[in-house]
Amino acid sequence: MRPLVAVDWGTSSLRVARVDADGTVLEERSSERGILTVPAGAFPDILRETCGDWLHQPEALCLVSGMAGSRQGWQEAPYCSCPAGFTDLSRALAWIEPERIALVPGLRFEFLDTPDAMRGEEVQVFGAMDLLRLQAGMFVLPGTHCKWVRVADGRVQSFATFMSGEFYALLRQHSILARTLPEEDGPLEEAAFLRGVHHAQQARSLLHSAFSARTLALFGRLPTQALPSYLSGLVIGEELRSRALHGLEVVLIGAPALTERYALALRTLGCQSRSLGSEATWRGHWALARTLQKS
Amino acid sequence: MRPLVAVDWGTSSLRVARVDADGTVLEERSSERGILTVPAGAFPDILRETCGDWLHQPEALCLVSGMAGSRQGWQEAPYCSCPAGFTDLSRALAWIEPERIALVPGLRFEFLDTPDAMRGEEVQVFGAMDLLRLQAGMFVLPGTHCKWVRVADGRVQSFATFMSGEFYALLRQHSILARTLPEEDGPLEEAAFLRGVHHAQQARSLLHSAFSARTLALFGRLPTQALPSYLSGLVIGEELRSRALHGLEVVLIGAPALTERYALALRTLGCQSRSLGSEATWRGHWALARTLQKS
Repeated sequence: MRPLVAVDWGTSSLRVARVDADGTVLEERSSERGILTVPAGAFPDILRETCGDWLHQPEALCLVSGMAGSRQGWQEAPYCSCPAGFTDLSRALAWIEPERIALVPGLRFEFLDTPDAMRGEEVQVFGAMDLLRLQAGMFVLPGTHCKWVRVADGRVQSFATFMSGEFYALLRQHSILARTLPEEDGPLEEAAFLRGVHHAQQARSLLHSAFSARTLALFGRLPTQALPSYLSGLVIGEELRSRALHGLEVVLIGAPALTERYALALRTLGCQSRSLGSEATWRGHWALARTLQKS
Repeated sequence: MRPLVAVDWGTSSLRVARVDADGTVLEERSSERGILTVPAGAFPDILRETCGDWLHQPEALCLVSGMAGSRQGWQEAPYCSCPAGFTDLSRALAWIEPERIALVPGLRFEFLDTPDAMRGEEVQVFGAMDLLRLQAGMFVLPGTHCKWVRVADGRVQSFATFMSGEFYALLRQHSILARTLPEEDGPLEEAAFLRGVHHAQQARSLLHSAFSARTLALFGRLPTQALPSYLSGLVIGEELRSRALHGLEVVLIGAPALTERYALALRTLGCQSRSLGSEATWRGHWALARTLQKS
């Protein structure tokens, strides 16, 4: 296999890795040059500044995933429709330099006349499938816009986006709760977090349960410093409430600080989980490159 | 009955009315002097500036409802616990000048170890009960923090707060959706609003459904100017989804622009409603004054 330069180019950050033929990550770099900071036409220059030395290797293949493939990015790589597997994705690559640099398309899924979309997470899911040798399962990618991705027969069959990270930030910073919450989140208070998770199961909507963060403070029933953990539990608990879990086993992919919260919430609701971090991203690029070179 | 000066003193506005013995509203005034604008100790002065001429009438009784009775207001009037009726409320008044000026306490309700609270809406509910001669029913007060209030045997038995107005504003102004939505809301687009209401019933959580406002725009499936109506439908629809409606008949109390949206959403989900406006507020003060003078 050719040497691989894997690029995960999101809205607010740019991460790159040099991966060898057997999938080992030799070197990683990251910068704050997310696509929102890149002027039109400057994508090739920024990539060269970040990892030009790697790109100069003979035969290097560069796969770019994430929002760089969106309308606001380097060039639009049209979404690939579900169900989609490695082969579908590799066929839908948008080549910037033929055989050298390609944008990985995102996925789209349509349900009840309403489209859903992702860009970047699909590579992480394929990486997790490859690492764990799974052809089926539920993959959950917590974050600003958390994705629940259902895989069967080695292909993504469907997925759903939850704006959980964003709702937490909105409530934390801009809502009436912001007046009550302490300035800093502090470390997770597990009891308060789990209380939030359980309350969310009863309340049936975050529109209602979120107000309890205010009243519990108002009546002195929860110390101020526990409120961020409680609110986090309400938001993650709301997300889990709306899924038919029934003892489901899920694979969590993301930063440990977040996947640990999801694992805790899932466990208290009777579900098992395994967690993967950034290794899934680079493995996904590598598995895609392998598929590409086989076909 | 003595002449009544009814005061509805909320967070961001101050409204007053002079009500005669049979409940007729003789005169109304309002100002932007909500409690957030009033320095500590200045409440008596602001009230005198607003309606001092009315307070000088011999025998005038002044009842003040709303956040003026909160810890951040004129003086704290401790919450009255549910179930609570006219008599409970009149006994729990916090007198500022004996027999002359009183703060109406808010209500609190406890469910599953979690308190809920209201201040001001209880007077509107009692006013609506009096106007419609109802001793039981479901009263819904849309707004920043919408209240669902269940009345039986002439007393408020339970209630729940939904932060619907606030969530709409958060998503409208501070979320990723703000980038896609037009600057002004424009008039309600009924079809887009109802599409939002229906989608909310399927999506099972606003965390998920809210993302559809982004994807429908992204894929050119809903014109930009229809997005505020669609988002409003998602939020109100989410609130209704979480309630066990089953053909319930509700009384809506609030500004027509909002109660009309709720009526529309309720009707499409098979529920009937009646609507009342500010007349419920003044009628509530008057009915409370009547109860007080009888007892």
